[in-house]
Amino acid sequence: MVPPEKKARTAGYTLYYWSGIPGRGEFIRLAFEYAGQPYVEMNDAKSLLPTIKNVSKIGHPVHYAPPVLELPSGRVISQTSAILNHIAPILGLAGEIGSNVIKTDLNEEEREKAEEERSSVNQLVLTVLDLCNETHDVHHPIAVSKYYEDQKDAAIERAADFRATRIPKFFEHFENVLSTNPATANLDRTYLIGKQTTTADLVLFHAVDGLLFAFPKRLTAIRESGQYDNIFKLHERIVGEKGIKEYIESGRRQAFNMGLFRHYEELDGEE
Amino acid sequence: MVPPEKKARTAGYTLYYWSGIPGRGEFIRLAFEYAGQPYVEMNDAKSLLPTIKNVSKIGHPVHYAPPVLELPSGRVISQTSAILNHIAPILGLAGEIGSNVIKTDLNEEEREKAEEERSSVNQLVLTVLDLCNETHDVHHPIAVSKYYEDQKDAAIERAADFRATRIPKFFEHFENVLSTNPATANLDRTYLIGKQTTTADLVLFHAVDGLLFAFPKRLTAIRESGQYDNIFKLHERIVGEKGIKEYIESGRRQAFNMGLFRHYEELDGEE
Repeated sequence: MVPPEKKARTAGYTLYYWSGIPGRGEFIRLAFEYAGQPYVEMNDAKSLLPTIKNVSKIGHPVHYAPPVLELPSGRVISQTSAILNHIAPILGLAGEIGSNVIKTDLNEEEREKAEEERSSVNQLVLTVLDLCNETHDVHHPIAVSKYYEDQKDAAIERAADFRATRIPKFFEHFENVLSTNPATANLDRTYLIGKQTTTADLVLFHAVDGLLFAFPKRLTAIRESGQYDNIFKLHERIVGEKGIKEYIESGRRQAFNMGLFRHYEELDGEE
Repeated sequence: MVPPEKKARTAGYTLYYWSGIPGRGEFIRLAFEYAGQPYVEMNDAKSLLPTIKNVSKIGHPVHYAPPVLELPSGRVISQTSAILNHIAPILGLAGEIGSNVIKTDLNEEEREKAEEERSSVNQLVLTVLDLCNETHDVHHPIAVSKYYEDQKDAAIERAADFRATRIPKFFEHFENVLSTNPATANLDRTYLIGKQTTTADLVLFHAVDGLLFAFPKRLTAIRESGQYDNIFKLHERIVGEKGIKEYIESGRRQAFNMGLFRHYEELDGEE
Protein backbone atom coordinates (compact mmCIF):
# COMPACT_ATOMS: atom_id res chain seq x y z
CA MET A 1 0.00 0.00 0.00
CA VAL A 2 1.36 3.42 -0.90
CA PRO A 3 0.96 5.43 2.29
CA PRO A 4 -0.78 8.81 1.97
CA GLU A 5 2.37 10.89 2.15
CA LYS A 6 3.78 8.96 -0.78
CA LYS A 7 0.75 9.54 -2.93
CA ALA A 8 1.37 13.24 -3.14
CA ARG A 9 3.19 14.29 -6.28
CA THR A 10 6.56 15.68 -5.30
CA ALA A 11 7.31 17.00 -8.79
CA GLY A 12 10.77 15.59 -8.38
CA TYR A 13 13.00 12.54 -8.24
CA THR A 14 14.73 11.26 -5.11
CA LEU A 15 17.55 8.75 -5.50
CA TYR A 16 18.18 6.51 -2.49
CA TYR A 17 21.74 5.27 -2.53
CA TRP A 18 24.83 4.84 -0.35
CA SER A 19 27.08 7.84 0.09
CA GLY A 20 30.80 7.75 -0.59
CA ILE A 21 30.84 5.53 -3.69
CA PRO A 22 29.56 6.07 -7.23
CA GLY A 23 28.28 2.47 -7.21
CA ARG A 24 25.17 1.46 -9.11
CA GLY A 25 23.56 4.79 -8.21
CA GLU A 26 25.90 6.42 -10.74
CA PHE A 27 24.08 4.81 -13.68
CA ILE A 28 20.94 6.66 -12.61
CA ARG A 29 22.76 9.92 -11.89
CA LEU A 30 24.33 9.94 -15.36
CA ALA A 31 20.88 9.74 -17.00
CA PHE A 32 19.61 12.69 -14.97
CA GLU A 33 22.80 14.70 -15.46
CA TYR A 34 22.84 14.15 -19.22
CA ALA A 35 19.18 15.15 -19.49
CA GLY A 36 19.52 18.14 -17.17
CA GLN A 37 16.80 16.71 -14.93
CA PRO A 38 17.17 17.83 -11.30
CA TYR A 39 17.08 15.15 -8.61
CA VAL A 40 17.86 14.96 -4.94
CA GLU A 41 19.58 12.19 -3.01
CA MET A 42 18.75 10.39 0.22
CA ASN A 43 21.86 8.66 1.46
CA ASP A 44 21.69 8.47 5.21
CA ALA A 45 23.42 5.14 5.84
CA LYS A 46 21.43 4.41 9.00
CA SER A 47 17.95 4.85 7.62
CA LEU A 48 18.50 3.71 4.03
CA LEU A 49 17.81 -0.02 4.38
CA PRO A 50 15.16 0.30 7.13
CA THR A 51 13.29 2.71 4.82
CA ILE A 52 13.42 0.79 1.54
CA LYS A 53 12.43 -2.49 3.20
CA ASN A 54 9.46 -1.04 5.09
CA VAL A 55 6.17 -1.03 3.22
CA SER A 56 4.67 1.66 5.46
CA LYS A 57 7.52 4.00 4.55
CA ILE A 58 8.12 3.26 0.88
CA GLY A 59 4.94 1.62 -0.40
CA HIS A 60 4.53 -1.79 -2.02
CA PRO A 61 6.52 -3.59 -3.30
CA VAL A 62 9.47 -3.06 -0.97
CA HIS A 63 13.04 -3.21 -2.22
CA TYR A 64 15.93 -5.62 -1.98
CA ALA A 65 18.75 -3.10 -2.28
CA PRO A 66 19.59 0.40 -3.49
CA PRO A 67 19.58 2.12 -5.96
CA VAL A 68 15.96 3.00 -5.31
CA LEU A 69 14.19 5.87 -7.06
CA GLU A 70 11.17 7.80 -5.85
CA LEU A 71 9.27 9.13 -8.84
CA PRO A 72 7.41 12.45 -8.96
CA SER A 73 4.13 10.51 -8.48
CA GLY A 74 5.37 9.19 -5.13
CA ARG A 75 5.76 5.64 -6.49
CA VAL A 76 9.09 4.03 -5.73
CA ILE A 77 11.03 1.57 -7.91
CA SER A 78 14.36 -0.21 -7.63
CA GLN A 79 16.76 -2.34 -9.67
CA THR A 80 19.15 -0.34 -11.85
CA SER A 81 17.87 -1.54 -15.22
CA ALA A 82 14.19 -1.22 -14.19
CA ILE A 83 14.79 2.36 -13.07
CA LEU A 84 16.67 3.21 -16.28
CA ASN A 85 14.02 1.55 -18.46
CA HIS A 86 11.37 3.56 -16.63
CA ILE A 87 13.00 6.99 -16.83
CA ALA A 88 14.71 6.59 -20.22
CA PRO A 89 11.70 7.59 -22.36
CA ILE A 90 10.77 10.40 -19.95
CA LEU A 91 14.29 11.82 -20.32
CA GLY A 92 14.42 11.17 -24.07
CA LEU A 93 17.08 8.50 -23.57
CA ALA A 94 15.20 5.45 -24.92
CA GLY A 95 16.01 6.20 -28.55
CA GLU A 96 14.38 8.55 -31.03
CA ILE A 97 11.47 6.16 -31.57
CA GLY A 98 11.60 4.35 -28.21
CA SER A 99 11.19 7.55 -26.23
CA ASN A 100 7.77 8.00 -27.83
CA VAL A 101 6.21 5.39 -25.53
CA ILE A 102 5.23 8.10 -23.07
CA LYS A 103 3.08 9.83 -25.71
CA THR A 104 -0.66 9.31 -25.55
CA ASP A 105 -1.46 9.77 -29.25
CA LEU A 106 0.32 6.80 -30.85
CA ASN A 107 -1.58 4.29 -32.95
CA GLU A 108 -1.08 0.56 -32.46
CA GLU A 109 1.76 0.24 -34.94
CA GLU A 110 3.59 3.32 -33.68
CA ARG A 111 3.26 2.07 -30.11
CA GLU A 112 4.62 -1.36 -31.05
CA LYS A 113 7.66 0.16 -32.79
CA ALA A 114 8.36 2.48 -29.88
CA GLU A 115 8.09 -0.36 -27.36
CA GLU A 116 10.47 -2.44 -29.44
CA GLU A 117 13.19 0.19 -29.67
CA ARG A 118 12.86 0.86 -25.96
CA SER A 119 13.30 -2.88 -25.30
CA SER A 120 16.43 -2.95 -27.46
CA VAL A 121 17.88 -0.13 -25.36
CA ASN A 122 16.94 -2.07 -22.21
CA GLN A 123 18.64 -5.17 -23.63
CA LEU A 124 21.87 -3.25 -24.24
CA VAL A 125 21.77 -1.69 -20.77
CA LEU A 126 21.34 -5.15 -19.22
CA THR A 127 24.33 -6.57 -21.07
CA VAL A 128 26.56 -3.72 -19.90
CA LEU A 129 25.30 -4.24 -16.34
CA ASP A 130 26.16 -7.96 -16.65
CA LEU A 131 29.73 -6.90 -17.41
CA CYS A 132 29.68 -4.57 -14.39
CA ASN A 133 28.36 -7.35 -12.13
CA GLU A 134 31.15 -9.63 -13.30
CA THR A 135 33.65 -6.86 -12.62
CA HIS A 136 32.35 -6.69 -9.07
CA ASP A 137 32.47 -10.45 -8.61
CA VAL A 138 36.15 -10.50 -9.60
CA HIS A 139 37.01 -8.94 -6.24
CA HIS A 140 34.27 -10.86 -4.39
CA PRO A 141 34.11 -14.34 -5.97
CA ILE A 142 33.19 -16.22 -2.78
CA ALA A 143 30.95 -14.00 -0.64
CA VAL A 144 29.88 -10.36 -0.68
CA SER A 145 29.71 -10.51 3.11
CA LYS A 146 33.43 -11.29 3.44
CA TYR A 147 36.47 -9.04 3.09
CA TYR A 148 38.44 -9.03 -0.14
CA GLU A 149 41.50 -10.19 1.79
CA ASP A 150 39.65 -13.35 2.83
CA GLN A 151 38.96 -14.32 -0.80
CA LYS A 152 42.05 -12.88 -2.43
CA ASP A 153 43.36 -16.19 -3.84
CA ALA A 154 40.07 -16.95 -5.56
CA ALA A 155 39.93 -13.32 -6.74
CA ILE A 156 43.36 -13.61 -8.36
CA GLU A 157 42.25 -16.76 -10.18
CA ARG A 158 38.98 -15.18 -11.30
CA ALA A 159 40.72 -11.98 -12.37
CA ALA A 160 43.01 -13.92 -14.73
CA ASP A 161 39.97 -15.37 -16.52
CA PHE A 162 38.16 -12.04 -16.45
CA ARG A 163 41.09 -10.25 -18.11
CA ALA A 164 41.77 -12.99 -20.65
CA THR A 165 38.29 -14.06 -21.71
CA ARG A 166 35.47 -12.01 -20.21
CA ILE A 167 36.49 -8.42 -21.00
CA PRO A 168 37.32 -9.34 -24.64
CA LYS A 169 34.03 -11.23 -25.03
CA PHE A 170 31.94 -8.29 -23.83
CA PHE A 171 34.03 -5.73 -25.72
CA GLU A 172 33.76 -7.74 -28.93
CA HIS A 173 29.99 -7.69 -28.51
CA PHE A 174 29.71 -3.94 -27.91
CA GLU A 175 32.14 -3.17 -30.75
CA ASN A 176 29.98 -5.36 -32.99
CA VAL A 177 26.83 -3.48 -31.95
CA LEU A 178 28.50 -0.08 -32.47
CA SER A 179 30.06 -0.90 -35.83
CA THR A 180 26.90 -2.44 -37.33
CA ASN A 181 24.44 0.25 -36.25
CA PRO A 182 22.66 1.13 -39.51
CA ALA A 183 21.78 4.61 -38.20
CA THR A 184 25.47 5.61 -37.99
CA ALA A 185 26.63 4.18 -41.32
CA ASN A 186 28.06 7.55 -42.38
CA LEU A 187 28.78 8.97 -38.95
CA ASP A 188 31.06 8.32 -36.00
CA ARG A 189 30.08 4.90 -34.73
CA THR A 190 29.67 5.97 -31.13
CA TYR A 191 25.97 5.19 -30.66
CA LEU A 192 24.82 1.72 -29.65
CA ILE A 193 21.40 2.26 -31.18
CA GLY A 194 20.01 5.00 -33.40
CA LYS A 195 21.93 8.24 -33.64
CA GLN A 196 21.16 9.92 -30.37
CA THR A 197 22.41 9.16 -26.88
CA THR A 198 20.52 6.48 -24.94
CA THR A 199 20.89 5.12 -21.43
CA ALA A 200 22.81 2.24 -23.07
CA ASP A 201 25.55 4.66 -24.23
CA LEU A 202 25.74 6.27 -20.77
CA VAL A 203 25.96 2.92 -19.01
CA LEU A 204 28.68 1.68 -21.38
CA PHE A 205 30.59 4.93 -20.85
CA HIS A 206 30.52 4.38 -17.09
CA ALA A 207 31.50 0.70 -17.41
CA VAL A 208 34.55 1.62 -19.50
CA ASP A 209 35.38 4.38 -17.02
CA GLY A 210 35.17 1.89 -14.14
CA LEU A 211 37.30 -0.68 -15.96
CA LEU A 212 39.94 1.96 -16.74
CA PHE A 213 40.09 2.61 -13.01
CA ALA A 214 40.04 -1.03 -11.89
CA PHE A 215 42.21 -2.63 -14.58
CA PRO A 216 44.36 0.21 -15.99
CA LYS A 217 47.08 -2.04 -17.40
CA ARG A 218 44.67 -4.45 -19.03
CA LEU A 219 42.48 -1.68 -20.44
CA THR A 220 45.47 0.13 -21.86
CA ALA A 221 46.49 -3.05 -23.67
CA ILE A 222 42.94 -3.51 -24.93
CA ARG A 223 42.74 0.08 -26.16
CA GLU A 224 46.11 -0.19 -27.87
CA SER A 225 45.07 -3.39 -29.65
CA GLY A 226 42.92 -1.17 -31.87
CA GLN A 227 40.18 -3.82 -31.91
CA TYR A 228 37.68 -1.79 -29.93
CA ASP A 229 38.18 1.75 -31.17
CA ASN A 230 34.49 2.60 -31.31
CA ILE A 231 34.00 1.70 -27.65
CA PHE A 232 36.77 4.11 -26.61
CA LYS A 233 35.44 6.77 -29.01
CA LEU A 234 32.02 6.43 -27.37
CA HIS A 235 33.71 6.92 -24.00
CA GLU A 236 35.43 10.07 -25.27
CA ARG A 237 32.22 11.38 -26.79
CA ILE A 238 30.24 11.00 -23.57
CA VAL A 239 32.96 12.71 -21.50
CA GLY A 240 32.42 15.79 -23.67
CA GLU A 241 28.61 15.70 -23.92
CA LYS A 242 26.67 18.63 -22.49
CA GLY A 243 25.35 17.68 -19.07
CA ILE A 244 28.03 15.06 -18.50
CA LYS A 245 30.87 17.52 -19.12
CA GLU A 246 29.31 19.94 -16.63
CA TYR A 247 28.73 17.12 -14.15
CA ILE A 248 32.38 16.03 -14.30
CA GLU A 249 33.67 19.62 -14.08
CA SER A 250 31.38 20.40 -11.14
CA GLY A 251 33.32 18.05 -8.87
CA ARG A 252 30.02 16.41 -7.85
CA ARG A 253 30.87 13.18 -9.66
CA GLN A 254 32.37 10.90 -7.03
CA ALA A 255 35.70 9.21 -7.67
CA PHE A 256 35.88 5.43 -7.88
CA ASN A 257 37.19 3.85 -4.72
CA MET A 258 36.01 0.74 -2.86
CA GLY A 259 32.66 0.09 -4.55
CA LEU A 260 31.57 -1.84 -7.61
CA PHE A 261 34.81 -1.01 -9.42
CA ARG A 262 37.96 -1.48 -7.33
CA HIS A 263 41.61 -1.32 -8.21
CA TYR A 264 43.84 -4.01 -6.76
CA GLU A 265 47.26 -4.10 -8.39
CA GLU A 266 47.44 -7.89 -8.12
CA LEU A 267 44.19 -8.36 -10.09
CA ASP A 268 45.33 -6.28 -13.06
CA GLY A 269 47.93 -8.77 -14.34
CA GLU A 270 51.03 -8.16 -16.36
CA GLU A 271 49.62 -7.18 -19.73
CA MET B 1 19.67 -3.05 -40.11
CA VAL B 2 16.73 -5.37 -40.03
CA PRO B 3 17.09 -7.45 -43.20
CA PRO B 4 14.03 -7.72 -45.46
CA GLU B 5 13.08 -11.24 -44.38
CA LYS B 6 12.93 -10.10 -40.77
CA LYS B 7 10.65 -7.21 -41.53
CA ALA B 8 7.80 -9.47 -42.50
CA ARG B 9 5.34 -10.10 -39.71
CA THR B 10 5.48 -13.77 -38.80
CA ALA B 11 2.42 -13.60 -36.53
CA GLY B 12 4.35 -15.66 -34.05
CA TYR B 13 7.15 -15.85 -31.52
CA THR B 14 10.38 -17.78 -31.98
CA LEU B 15 12.53 -18.48 -28.94
CA TYR B 16 16.23 -19.02 -29.63
CA TYR B 17 17.76 -21.08 -26.87
CA TRP B 18 20.01 -24.05 -26.19
CA SER B 19 18.41 -27.48 -26.30
CA GLY B 20 18.71 -29.98 -23.48
CA ILE B 21 18.44 -27.62 -20.48
CA PRO B 22 15.58 -25.49 -19.15
CA GLY B 23 18.11 -22.70 -18.51
CA ARG B 24 17.12 -19.05 -18.81
CA GLY B 25 14.88 -19.91 -21.74
CA GLU B 26 12.48 -21.48 -19.26
CA PHE B 27 11.53 -18.10 -17.79
CA ILE B 28 10.23 -17.09 -21.23
CA ARG B 29 8.53 -20.43 -21.88
CA LEU B 30 6.62 -20.22 -18.60
CA ALA B 31 5.14 -16.86 -19.59
CA PHE B 32 3.95 -18.22 -22.95
CA GLU B 33 2.68 -21.47 -21.43
CA TYR B 34 0.75 -19.68 -18.68
CA ALA B 35 -0.83 -17.32 -21.19
CA GLY B 36 -1.58 -20.05 -23.73
CA GLN B 37 0.42 -18.15 -26.35
CA PRO B 38 1.94 -20.48 -28.99
CA TYR B 39 5.65 -20.13 -29.74
CA VAL B 40 8.24 -22.12 -31.62
CA GLU B 41 11.84 -22.78 -30.71
CA MET B 42 15.08 -22.54 -32.64
CA ASN B 43 17.73 -24.50 -30.81
CA ASP B 44 20.22 -25.79 -33.32
CA ALA B 45 23.43 -25.64 -31.30
CA LYS B 46 25.63 -25.05 -34.35
CA SER B 47 23.80 -22.09 -35.82
CA LEU B 48 22.52 -20.47 -32.61
CA LEU B 49 25.44 -18.17 -31.77
CA PRO B 50 26.46 -17.44 -35.40
CA THR B 51 22.85 -16.34 -36.00
CA ILE B 52 22.26 -14.13 -32.98
CA LYS B 53 25.63 -12.36 -33.35
CA ASN B 54 25.19 -11.64 -37.07
CA VAL B 55 23.43 -8.38 -37.91
CA SER B 56 22.55 -9.55 -41.43
CA LYS B 57 20.68 -12.52 -39.99
CA ILE B 58 19.04 -11.11 -36.88
CA GLY B 59 18.92 -7.34 -37.37
CA HIS B 60 20.42 -4.63 -35.15
CA PRO B 61 21.33 -4.70 -32.31
CA VAL B 62 22.92 -8.15 -32.23
CA HIS B 63 22.87 -10.27 -29.09
CA TYR B 64 25.35 -11.31 -26.47
CA ALA B 65 23.74 -14.62 -25.51
CA PRO B 66 20.46 -16.55 -25.61
CA PRO B 67 17.63 -16.43 -24.67
CA VAL B 68 16.73 -14.39 -27.74
CA LEU B 69 13.15 -13.82 -28.85
CA GLU B 70 11.92 -13.01 -32.33
CA LEU B 71 8.69 -11.03 -32.08
CA PRO B 72 5.76 -11.26 -34.51
CA SER B 73 6.97 -7.99 -36.09
CA GLY B 74 10.29 -9.61 -37.00
CA ARG B 75 12.18 -7.54 -34.43
CA VAL B 76 14.48 -9.55 -32.19
CA ILE B 77 15.31 -8.88 -28.52
CA SER B 78 17.42 -10.59 -25.89
CA GLN B 79 18.16 -10.51 -22.16
CA THR B 80 15.71 -12.46 -20.02
CA SER B 81 14.26 -9.52 -18.11
CA ALA B 82 14.04 -7.31 -21.22
CA ILE B 83 12.13 -10.05 -23.04
CA LEU B 84 9.80 -10.59 -20.07
CA ASN B 85 9.22 -6.87 -19.62
CA HIS B 86 8.40 -6.63 -23.31
CA ILE B 87 5.95 -9.52 -23.54
CA ALA B 88 4.41 -9.24 -20.06
CA PRO B 89 1.78 -6.61 -20.93
CA ILE B 90 1.01 -8.32 -24.26
CA LEU B 91 0.32 -11.57 -22.37
CA GLY B 92 -1.54 -9.83 -19.54
CA LEU B 93 1.28 -10.65 -17.12
CA ALA B 94 2.40 -7.13 -16.17
CA GLY B 95 -0.31 -6.66 -13.54
CA GLU B 96 -3.93 -5.61 -13.89
CA ILE B 97 -2.97 -1.96 -14.40
CA GLY B 98 0.54 -2.52 -15.80
CA SER B 99 -0.71 -4.64 -18.68
CA ASN B 100 -2.66 -1.63 -19.94
CA VAL B 101 0.50 -0.06 -21.38
CA ILE B 102 -0.19 -1.70 -24.73
CA LYS B 103 -3.52 0.12 -25.04
CA THR B 104 -3.69 3.17 -27.29
CA ASP B 105 -6.51 5.02 -25.51
CA LEU B 106 -4.95 5.85 -22.13
CA ASN B 107 -4.71 9.42 -20.91
CA GLU B 108 -1.49 10.75 -19.43
CA GLU B 109 -2.30 9.78 -15.86
CA GLU B 110 -3.51 6.29 -16.80
CA ARG B 111 -0.38 5.73 -18.86
CA GLU B 112 1.86 6.85 -16.01
CA LYS B 113 0.15 4.47 -13.56
CA ALA B 114 0.34 1.57 -15.99
CA GLU B 115 4.03 2.21 -16.67
CA GLU B 116 4.72 2.32 -12.95
CA GLU B 117 3.04 -1.00 -12.15
CA ARG B 118 4.83 -2.60 -15.08
CA SER B 119 8.15 -1.29 -13.75
CA SER B 120 7.39 -2.74 -10.31
CA VAL B 121 6.83 -6.14 -11.95
CA ASN B 122 10.11 -5.70 -13.83
CA GLN B 123 11.87 -4.82 -10.56
CA LEU B 124 10.60 -8.02 -8.91
CA VAL B 125 11.58 -10.15 -11.91
CA LEU B 126 15.09 -8.67 -11.81
CA THR B 127 15.55 -9.45 -8.12
CA VAL B 128 14.51 -13.08 -8.65
CA LEU B 129 16.91 -13.30 -11.59
CA ASP B 130 19.68 -11.93 -9.34
CA LEU B 131 19.04 -14.87 -7.02
CA CYS B 132 19.18 -17.24 -10.00
CA ASN B 133 22.46 -15.74 -11.21
CA GLU B 134 23.94 -16.20 -7.75
CA THR B 135 22.72 -19.80 -7.75
CA HIS B 136 24.60 -20.34 -11.00
CA ASP B 137 27.75 -18.67 -9.70
CA VAL B 138 27.82 -21.05 -6.72
CA HIS B 139 28.91 -23.87 -9.04
CA HIS B 140 31.04 -21.56 -11.21
CA PRO B 141 32.64 -19.01 -8.85
CA ILE B 142 35.91 -18.62 -10.78
CA ALA B 143 35.20 -18.94 -14.51
CA VAL B 144 32.22 -19.97 -16.65
CA SER B 145 34.70 -21.30 -19.20
CA LYS B 146 36.15 -23.86 -16.76
CA TYR B 147 34.75 -27.17 -15.52
CA TYR B 148 33.06 -27.36 -12.15
CA GLU B 149 35.69 -29.86 -11.02
CA ASP B 150 38.41 -27.27 -11.60
CA GLN B 151 36.75 -24.77 -9.25
CA LYS B 152 35.17 -27.18 -6.78
CA ASP B 153 37.02 -25.92 -3.69
CA ALA B 154 35.93 -22.34 -4.32
CA ALA B 155 32.41 -23.62 -5.08
CA ILE B 156 32.20 -25.41 -1.73
CA GLU B 157 33.25 -22.23 0.05
CA ARG B 158 30.80 -20.09 -1.91
CA ALA B 159 27.99 -22.61 -1.39
CA ALA B 160 28.38 -22.40 2.39
CA ASP B 161 27.83 -18.64 2.26
CA PHE B 162 25.01 -19.01 -0.27
CA ARG B 163 23.13 -21.46 1.95
CA ALA B 164 23.75 -19.55 5.16
CA THR B 165 23.28 -15.94 4.11
CA ARG B 166 22.16 -15.47 0.50
CA ILE B 167 19.12 -17.75 0.23
CA PRO B 168 17.69 -16.44 3.53
CA LYS B 169 18.29 -12.82 2.49
CA PHE B 170 16.44 -13.22 -0.81
CA PHE B 171 13.68 -15.36 0.74
CA GLU B 172 13.14 -12.81 3.50
CA HIS B 173 12.71 -10.16 0.83
CA PHE B 174 10.19 -12.11 -1.26
CA GLU B 175 8.25 -13.18 1.84
CA ASN B 176 8.12 -9.53 2.87
CA VAL B 177 6.80 -8.52 -0.58
CA LEU B 178 4.18 -11.32 -0.55
CA SER B 179 2.96 -10.71 2.98
CA THR B 180 2.64 -6.92 2.62
CA ASN B 181 0.85 -6.88 -0.74
CA PRO B 182 -2.18 -4.66 -0.05
CA ALA B 183 -4.16 -6.31 -2.87
CA THR B 184 -4.14 -9.69 -1.10
CA ALA B 185 -4.94 -8.48 2.43
CA ASN B 186 -7.90 -10.86 2.66
CA LEU B 187 -6.67 -13.53 0.25
CA ASP B 188 -3.94 -16.11 -0.01
CA ARG B 189 -0.74 -14.15 -0.08
CA THR B 190 0.65 -15.85 -3.17
CA TYR B 191 0.88 -12.84 -5.49
CA LEU B 192 3.94 -10.60 -5.46
CA ILE B 193 1.97 -7.67 -6.83
CA GLY B 194 -1.74 -7.12 -7.33
CA LYS B 195 -4.03 -10.14 -7.28
CA GLN B 196 -3.36 -11.73 -10.63
CA THR B 197 -0.37 -13.71 -11.84
CA THR B 198 2.53 -11.70 -13.22
CA THR B 199 5.84 -12.70 -14.77
CA ALA B 200 7.33 -12.02 -11.31
CA ASP B 201 5.26 -14.86 -9.81
CA LEU B 202 6.25 -17.23 -12.62
CA VAL B 203 9.93 -16.39 -12.31
CA LEU B 204 9.86 -16.84 -8.52
CA PHE B 205 8.07 -20.18 -8.98
CA HIS B 206 10.84 -21.37 -11.29
CA ALA B 207 13.59 -20.11 -8.99
CA VAL B 208 12.12 -22.04 -6.06
CA ASP B 209 11.74 -25.09 -8.30
CA GLY B 210 15.38 -24.83 -9.33
CA LEU B 211 16.58 -24.36 -5.74
CA LEU B 212 14.54 -27.41 -4.62
CA PHE B 213 16.43 -29.36 -7.29
CA ALA B 214 19.88 -27.92 -6.59
CA PHE B 215 19.78 -27.64 -2.79
CA PRO B 216 17.13 -30.16 -1.63
CA LYS B 217 18.41 -30.48 1.92
CA ARG B 218 18.80 -26.77 2.46
CA LEU B 219 15.43 -25.96 0.88
CA THR B 220 13.67 -28.59 3.00
CA ALA B 221 15.12 -27.00 6.12
CA ILE B 222 14.07 -23.57 4.90
CA ARG B 223 10.54 -24.75 4.14
CA GLU B 224 10.26 -26.46 7.51
CA SER B 225 11.38 -23.31 9.31
CA GLY B 226 7.92 -21.92 8.56
CA GLN B 227 9.42 -18.48 7.93
CA TYR B 228 8.69 -18.42 4.22
CA ASP B 229 5.32 -20.11 3.93
CA ASN B 230 3.94 -17.69 1.35
CA ILE B 231 6.83 -18.36 -1.03
CA PHE B 232 6.17 -22.09 -0.94
CA LYS B 233 2.40 -21.49 -1.27
CA LEU B 234 3.09 -19.38 -4.36
CA HIS B 235 5.13 -22.28 -5.73
CA GLU B 236 2.24 -24.68 -5.11
CA ARG B 237 -0.26 -22.30 -6.64
CA ILE B 238 1.70 -21.90 -9.87
CA VAL B 239 2.16 -25.69 -10.22
CA GLY B 240 -1.62 -25.97 -10.37
CA GLU B 241 -2.37 -22.96 -12.57
CA LYS B 242 -4.04 -23.57 -15.94
CA GLY B 243 -1.40 -23.47 -18.64
CA ILE B 244 1.43 -24.38 -16.27
CA LYS B 245 -0.34 -27.55 -15.07
CA GLU B 246 -0.86 -28.61 -18.68
CA TYR B 247 2.72 -27.73 -19.56
CA ILE B 248 4.09 -29.86 -16.73
CA GLU B 249 1.74 -32.77 -17.52
CA SER B 250 2.60 -32.62 -21.23
CA GLY B 251 6.13 -33.81 -20.55
CA ARG B 252 7.45 -30.88 -22.64
CA ARG B 253 8.90 -29.15 -19.61
CA GLN B 254 12.55 -30.17 -19.47
CA ALA B 255 14.02 -31.56 -16.26
CA PHE B 256 16.79 -29.69 -14.48
CA ASN B 257 20.19 -31.17 -15.13
CA MET B 258 23.50 -29.42 -15.84
CA GLY B 259 22.36 -25.89 -16.57
CA LEU B 260 21.70 -22.82 -14.43
CA PHE B 261 20.51 -24.98 -11.52
CA ARG B 262 22.75 -27.96 -10.74
CA HIS B 263 22.70 -30.44 -7.93
CA TYR B 264 26.04 -31.33 -6.40
CA GLU B 265 25.68 -33.22 -3.12
CA GLU B 266 28.74 -31.52 -1.66
CA LEU B 267 27.29 -28.04 -2.21
CA ASP B 268 24.05 -28.75 -0.35
CA GLY B 269 25.62 -28.95 3.12
CA GLU B 270 24.41 -30.78 6.16
CA GLU B 271 21.25 -28.90 7.05
